[in-house]
Amino acid sequence: MPRPSVIETGELQVILEDIADRVAGMSERGKVAQYIPELASVDLNQFGIAVAPIDGAPVSAGNADTLFSIQSISKVFSLTEALQHVGATLWQRVGREPSGDPFNSIVQLEHERGIPRNPFINPGAIVVADVLLEDRSSDEAVNDVLNLCRTLAEDASIQVDKAVADSEMRTGSRNRALAHFMKAEGNLKAPVEDVLSLYFRQCSIAMSCRQLAVAGRYLAAAGQNPADGSTVLSAQRARRVTALMMMCGSYDASGEFAFRVGLPAKSGVGGGILCIVPGIASVTAWSPGLDAKGNSHLASIAFQELVRATGWSVFGPSV
Amino acid sequence: MPRPSVIETGELQVILEDIADRVAGMSERGKVAQYIPELASVDLNQFGIAVAPIDGAPVSAGNADTLFSIQSISKVFSLTEALQHVGATLWQRVGREPSGDPFNSIVQLEHERGIPRNPFINPGAIVVADVLLEDRSSDEAVNDVLNLCRTLAEDASIQVDKAVADSEMRTGSRNRALAHFMKAEGNLKAPVEDVLSLYFRQCSIAMSCRQLAVAGRYLAAAGQNPADGSTVLSAQRARRVTALMMMCGSYDASGEFAFRVGLPAKSGVGGGILCIVPGIASVTAWSPGLDAKGNSHLASIAFQELVRATGWSVFGPSV
Amino acid sequence: MPRPSVIETGELQVILEDIADRVAGMSERGKVAQYIPELASVDLNQFGIAVAPIDGAPVSAGNADTLFSIQSISKVFSLTEALQHVGATLWQRVGREPSGDPFNSIVQLEHERGIPRNPFINPGAIVVADVLLEDRSSDEAVNDVLNLCRTLAEDASIQVDKAVADSEMRTGSRNRALAHFMKAEGNLKAPVEDVLSLYFRQCSIAMSCRQLAVAGRYLAAAGQNPADGSTVLSAQRARRVTALMMMCGSYDASGEFAFRVGLPAKSGVGGGILCIVPGIASVTAWSPGLDAKGNSHLASIAFQELVRATGWSVFGPSV
Amino acid sequence: MPRPSVIETGELQVILEDIADRVAGMSERGKVAQYIPELASVDLNQFGIAVAPIDGAPVSAGNADTLFSIQSISKVFSLTEALQHVGATLWQRVGREPSGDPFNSIVQLEHERGIPRNPFINPGAIVVADVLLEDRSSDEAVNDVLNLCRTLAEDASIQVDKAVADSEMRTGSRNRALAHFMKAEGNLKAPVEDVLSLYFRQCSIAMSCRQLAVAGRYLAAAGQNPADGSTVLSAQRARRVTALMMMCGSYDASGEFAFRVGLPAKSGVGGGILCIVPGIASVTAWSPGLDAKGNSHLASIAFQELVRATGWSVFGPSV
Repeated sequence: MPRPSVIETGELQVILEDIADRVAGMSERGKVAQYIPELASVDLNQFGIAVAPIDGAPVSAGNADTLFSIQSISKVFSLTEALQHVGATLWQRVGREPSGDPFNSIVQLEHERGIPRNPFINPGAIVVADVLLEDRSSDEAVNDVLNLCRTLAEDASIQVDKAVADSEMRTGSRNRALAHFMKAEGNLKAPVEDVLSLYFRQCSIAMSCRQLAVAGRYLAAAGQNPADGSTVLSAQRARRVTALMMMCGSYDASGEFAFRVGLPAKSGVGGGILCIVPGIASVTAWSPGLDAKGNSHLASIAFQELVRATGWSVFGPSV
Repeated sequence: MPRPSVIETGELQVILEDIADRVAGMSERGKVAQYIPELASVDLNQFGIAVAPIDGAPVSAGNADTLFSIQSISKVFSLTEALQHVGATLWQRVGREPSGDPFNSIVQLEHERGIPRNPFINPGAIVVADVLLEDRSSDEAVNDVLNLCRTLAEDASIQVDKAVADSEMRTGSRNRALAHFMKAEGNLKAPVEDVLSLYFRQCSIAMSCRQLAVAGRYLAAAGQNPADGSTVLSAQRARRVTALMMMCGSYDASGEFAFRVGLPAKSGVGGGILCIVPGIASVTAWSPGLDAKGNSHLASIAFQELVRATGWSVFGPSV
Repeated sequence: MPRPSVIETGELQVILEDIADRVAGMSERGKVAQYIPELASVDLNQFGIAVAPIDGAPVSAGNADTLFSIQSISKVFSLTEALQHVGATLWQRVGREPSGDPFNSIVQLEHERGIPRNPFINPGAIVVADVLLEDRSSDEAVNDVLNLCRTLAEDASIQVDKAVADSEMRTGSRNRALAHFMKAEGNLKAPVEDVLSLYFRQCSIAMSCRQLAVAGRYLAAAGQNPADGSTVLSAQRARRVTALMMMCGSYDASGEFAFRVGLPAKSGVGGGILCIVPGIASVTAWSPGLDAKGNSHLASIAFQELVRATGWSVFGPSV
Repeated sequence: MPRPSVIETGELQVILEDIADRVAGMSERGKVAQYIPELASVDLNQFGIAVAPIDGAPVSAGNADTLFSIQSISKVFSLTEALQHVGATLWQRVGREPSGDPFNSIVQLEHERGIPRNPFINPGAIVVADVLLEDRSSDEAVNDVLNLCRTLAEDASIQVDKAVADSEMRTGSRNRALAHFMKAEGNLKAPVEDVLSLYFRQCSIAMSCRQLAVAGRYLAAAGQNPADGSTVLSAQRARRVTALMMMCGSYDASGEFAFRVGLPAKSGVGGGILCIVPGIASVTAWSPGLDAKGNSHLASIAFQELVRATGWSVFGPSV
């Protein structure tokens, strides 16, 4: 019985270029996120994809080196930082179940007394940000998340896009509502504006497909950074973060993504999707147009094509 | 990088017996389902586990040959039967997302006009049953599901437990409410009592851990029945059913199961849990005591132990 | 300070005819209820209004003697019958608050464990019907409600419209869902089909504006039937039933009706609205076309006109 | 048929003293609001009641001249101010239906895109505050509401309790969540902190039973201030505000209050309840202990006693 397996660099290059070619010609491309002004002006005609095998050089196609706003994909890195920091007590303040609601829903919070369902919906990530502020300032925490991204991506040039962060800080009323609601329920300790300052800045980190793919390898590699063999998370925690990506990483279309693609993923409204192929590789695809659920339309299609070509679904081989 | 891999029969036997031994001594055992009278009298002091590798003989420990009511695990087999029968049009009548609500919730149905979130919550399985009745009677459909179980388990002795089925038929008011609600919304075609007669009987099929484990192998084997090489489902459909198990198979504790165990699973209130290890094996554990979310308390623990010992999580190796 | 006051018969006749004239010319007439086939064929070009003072002869205009299906207005009479029968223990099984949801919503039932918010939404009236069955058959209970209507209306000819009742019995899936749901929660004692047989038949009673207006006088007259001085309900209970009409009588447009009209009312999807003017009169208007919330479009307008002309709002005089 | 009617001063005095005496002896007194620190320290052993007939001198008993925080009763005055100011366009931004949810619920807002159900739940009153800020500063608007209270109560000494206002401003996370949520949905124009500054200060106005009763007379008097005959609201608007009090004035216990008392009322968590007897009087009772729904326990009982003694229910006479 064939299992997901490593694919030669040359063969992978052909697969990725083929995907980029086919996707380039598609007329239905989704819509860029409108609610963050700085994102609304991004050119819809872009697509990139990069695969970072845990034991080889990255392979890519399309606009794989173009920077984009990682947005909710940052929740993977802030959760990693928080798990290093406070460990399992984090789970007293945020759940581990899919929510069945949109990423910015407040209904579930009211029904469940301010405990977000999981760390990948907005209120959950805001709680994670609050956890990071227990022993450091908002500026320090932004630096810590940023440095984690730089180290994992092996690229010290990664930055917060200040224009995006400022734009979100000005317009983020829905996230403010979520934060104040949790404050009222006793599930937020730091001042709301401090937490949001961290949250909006981590979401505004700009990375390329290649950088993100390289940065995600530790989740495919039992928690170890393949670059230097250092432990980012224990193997168990790496599996658990990956499980959360599968269950909750694509908002209320997580089921659909698992059904169609079969890989744990974290999606962002900047149009990026980071997928983990356990034991093999970390992959990022990006295109700014979103579908109705807020996931990149073309990046989702690209992952379906990739899994068809590689057999990398965790739910079994293609043939 | 180690991947989930086949384990020798002898080593597996030792692992299963060790699990059975440890679980036997646990004092916290959950509670048997109270709302089906026939299930309420099952002896809490039972535990069984069986592994059916896709290319080898089953291995088991504990009460692995004791029959129990498969209940919601039957939803895997009725979905398989329906996919063989009507194919993809099924998805016009039932979704593929986790619901975020208990298995028998009606709230989501009202908010989403009678379309159940997925085929593994009760209303979804009732729609699947209705699909089966499009060209056959309730009795014929029961026989078809039963024969599928018999063929897959290689055991012609498998039967519906009539006492359980009658008990459910008398007391199933909540499921009747769900069915009539969907009827009102136009998402149920056959008469409600015909659909429920099928649904309650499929849930009342009695199987052992060993039988269920053998029966589940096609999902680990790209849709093919290892017994005879016949195609039960296409490889893509087998992956998709397995993905649905991961996302929605353990009611509103599916996230927790993915987090702790990392295997696609389908749970039943009879205390059984069927897990798929893609490319390797199908596994069933059973103990009648349930936790607060309706999943077998000891079977859940057993799967955590099994994954720890085997490294079979789809989210990456243990070490 | 002027208070709502009795108006001379002649003056009232002029007011009613003026209303009927103006309403006759309106082009926007709403839509007849579609979900009960027998109601869908009623002629939209009908309008009637009748005022029954507690101490004088009824006055009417338009199609005030045309029979129509009283539908949910019957909930006032079945509640009256139940209060006579079991008294205050009824309130252990049904609440007294507006629901904020449509009349046939099941969401609130799930959140509040099968206790309907009030006796005028469908699940509440179904519980009231169940209460009536505690010591009599469904046929006997139908007769009791029918006889109450006949006595109050001083008209022995009032009947259940069997064609409507049969039509509802065949198509009432949503009400069946509500009933089975409450059965599951332990808030329904009699068999569901018995309860619904009573419920659908009481809703199918056919009455005219004049008959309904006369029948409602006891609620305006401190619980006493002006025809013979007999006590239908205690003064306190009459006030309380009237209060429930104000708070919950027009489905989820009860607030709007109170805001625009200012009288306690019970509406039915047959197009009738019964209003109480405490201490003065009972009034019924009818026109089969409904607005989006299920209340008669023209009857609602007629009541606004009537209150403008008479100053009968319970919230204060017009001038 | 007797109708609610004016009662002689002497007789009213006896009734009120009798009520104050009986209430003084009750051991179950509810609990003071805990979530506003300044309110949590108020002495539970206080009770006052005052009746202000529209055409006579006020009558009172108990601690009728003790100042308390009017809290949500201020919503009546801010709504009056806004109706004078913007008129009917207000209703494009806030509904007129009971919500069926607690006063600070955010669930309804999400389901209905930021339009609060009515102006007497917190989000509705926050929108009304925002309306007032269309052409004036927060400080000016506070003065306008305060001056309206002073004029209506014929008492220039009425003030905002700054300690209470500051306390609410510091701890009002739930209201901040509501405001930011509506901001996100486009239903709040002024900066959130400006709106809340007005809202918290209007809620912190301190008045006595006597002052509040006198101030409410215009609602019983067809919108005219009995003191000077000036028009506060048109007769129609006065009726409509009164109707809203009936339907939505006691949070999610409005139905219960209508059922037991039968008068339009506005309740506040400071323990005050303002009731309108249309055409006759305005009444305020106060006791700081609240029941589970947030209404004063003893003031509610006092109104039941008052209506029993006076027959003032709008739903009909007692006898």
